Amino acid sequence: MIDITFLGTGAAIPSRERAMSSVAVRQGPNVVLFDCAEGTQRQLMLSPLSFMKITAIFVTHMHGDHMLGLPGLLQTMGFSGRDRALTVCGPEGFARSLEMLLGSCEGEVEYPLDVRELSPGDTVELPDATVTAFATEHGTRSLGYIYRGPPIRGKFDKARALELGLHPGPEFAAIQRGEAVRGVAPEEIVGPERPGLSVAYTGDTVKLAGIAEACRDVDVLIHESTYDAGDEALAEKNLHSTCVQAAETARDAGAGHLILTHISNRYTSTEDMLAHAREVFPDTYVAADLGRYEVTPSEFRQV
Amino acid sequence: MIDITFLGTGAAIPSRERAMSSVAVRQGPNVVLFDCAEGTQRQLMLSPLSFMKITAIFVTHMHGDHMLGLPGLLQTMGFSGRDRALTVCGPEGFARSLEMLLGSCEGEVEYPLDVRELSPGDTVELPDATVTAFATEHGTRSLGYIYRGPPIRGKFDKARALELGLHPGPEFAAIQRGEAVRGVAPEEIVGPERPGLSVAYTGDTVKLAGIAEACRDVDVLIHESTYDAGDEALAEKNLHSTCVQAAETARDAGAGHLILTHISNRYTSTEDMLAHAREVFPDTYVAADLGRYEVTPSEFRQV
Repeated sequence: MIDITFLGTGAAIPSRERAMSSVAVRQGPNVVLFDCAEGTQRQLMLSPLSFMKITAIFVTHMHGDHMLGLPGLLQTMGFSGRDRALTVCGPEGFARSLEMLLGSCEGEVEYPLDVRELSPGDTVELPDATVTAFATEHGTRSLGYIYRGPPIRGKFDKARALELGLHPGPEFAAIQRGEAVRGVAPEEIVGPERPGLSVAYTGDTVKLAGIAEACRDVDVLIHESTYDAGDEALAEKNLHSTCVQAAETARDAGAGHLILTHISNRYTSTEDMLAHAREVFPDTYVAADLGRYEVTPSEFRQV
Repeated sequence: MIDITFLGTGAAIPSRERAMSSVAVRQGPNVVLFDCAEGTQRQLMLSPLSFMKITAIFVTHMHGDHMLGLPGLLQTMGFSGRDRALTVCGPEGFARSLEMLLGSCEGEVEYPLDVRELSPGDTVELPDATVTAFATEHGTRSLGYIYRGPPIRGKFDKARALELGLHPGPEFAAIQRGEAVRGVAPEEIVGPERPGLSVAYTGDTVKLAGIAEACRDVDVLIHESTYDAGDEALAEKNLHSTCVQAAETARDAGAGHLILTHISNRYTSTEDMLAHAREVFPDTYVAADLGRYEVTPSEFRQV
C-alpha cells in the first residue's frame, strides 16, 4: 500500500485553508516528500507522519512556494537527532539554491545530505522504490517525478490451483513462494509479476503532452490545477494548468486516479473545479491540506 | 493604544501548538514585525492583522527560526500588489543573509526594500514611532529592539481647571489644544508630555544586565523564556534564558508588564513556568500563538 498525505495544497500565496506545496508519499521503508514549501515541517507535525522518517525529498523547481521549507525541516531533523543520510533532489541549479538557503541562516546540518541535481529521465534508487524525473514547463528549470514502489507479485489463480489438484494451506503457500508442488510449476498458477504501484507529481507546469507520455498508466497522477476551467488565459500567462487540462493529461496518460492540487486562493470553493475536471476524467479528487489517500493494487480511497 | 499579536511563540523546533518566533506590534500607522520565522505569513492570515499593512520588520538574529519566513512574506506582499517601500532591519550581516534567501528562490521583490544593518543604540525612525536596537548575547550577531510610540500628551487636571474657573466643553478643549483661556495657560492644567508607550523584544539571549538598563521603564517587556526554572544549566549551555531570569530582568528594568515567549517544546504546560516567573515579577504572562495584548497609557490587558 502507498499512502499519500497532502501537507500543503495552495498556490504561490497561501490562505487560511491552504499551506503551500508539499505532499508525502509513504510506502514500506520510504517517506518521500515532493516539494517542501515554507511551513512543511509544521504541517508534518499536524499530520500522522513522523518527520524523522523522511527518506528523500524531491523539489520540482526553485520557486519559494515549493522549497522554502527545506532549511527549517532539515535543521529540525538535525536538532531532533537525525544522523542517517537524507537524499535531497531537484533540477539543475538546485544544489546552489539549497546551499544559499542553508547559508543564509547558519543552518548547519550535521547528518549527511546526498544532494543531487536531476534531468528528465534520471532515476533515483531508494530502498524498495525508485523516483524518476520527467520534464515539465514552467518558465524555469523544473521537473515532475514518478514514484514507483516494488514490483507486485503476480495474481494467484485459486480456481486453477484447485483444478490442478492443489490444496489450500501449505501447498498454496509453497506455490506463492515460487516452489513447484507435486509437479505443478508456480507459473501455471501465479501470473507474471506486475509493476509496482506508482504516483506521479507534476509540480507547476503548463499542460504538456510529454507529461501524459511520461506518466503512462500511473496509478495516481497528482497534477497542479492552479485555475478552474474558463481561466485558461491566466493559466497560459502564468505557465500553470487548469483543472480540465490536468484531467485531459490524466485521461491521455491512462492514469488510475487524478488528484488536483496547487489551488489558487482566488477560489473559495473547489466544487466547480472538481465538476469540470470530472467531465473529462471522472476519477478526480481535489486535495485538501492534511487530506490522505491510500492506494493498493486493487483499491484507491480517500481516508 | 498599542496592540501586540504573537504569531509564533515556540523555540527552534515548532510544535503542533507553537509556530516559530514572530510578534507584531500595531499602533497608529504602524504594523511592525519583530522576527519573521518560517510560517509567519500564514500565521498573519490566521490573525486579525493585514499582512499588507506591515511597515517594518526587525530581525533579532540570523538563525532560521527567526528569519526564514522573510522571503515568503516579502514575495506574498509583492504578489498581492504592494508597491510602497518596506523597511527591513537586522544586525550586521543581515543584508547578505536576506540577499541569499531571496536569491535561493528567484524571489524578486518589485517594491523598494529599505534594508538596514543596525548596531546597539541605533534608532530607526518610523512614522509616529521609533525602534531602537540594544545588545543581546546569543553567541551570534544579535540585537533586541524597543518600539516606542509617539509622545503622550500630559494629564489634564480637571479639578484644577474647575478651580481656576474654566468650564467643561469648548474651554477644556481649547486648553487641551494648547491655547490659553481667559488668562489661564495650558501648563497650569495640563501636565508635561509623557514618553510614548513602549514595547521591548529581546529575541534569543542569555540574561544580561544591559538588557534591564536598555529597557528601563518599558511598558511591556517581551523576553525569551526558552526554559523553566531549574533548567539554568541548559539555558547557559544553549545561550538562552529561563523564565526566572526573564522575570529578574523585567523587575530590574522596572518594566510595566512581562510577556514570556520562545518556549521550548519540552514543556507540555507553561503553568509552572508562569508561577515561577510570577514569584519574581507578578505581572507576567506566557504568550500563546495568536494571543493578543492591548496596552494604553493606563491599561494593559490580554484580549
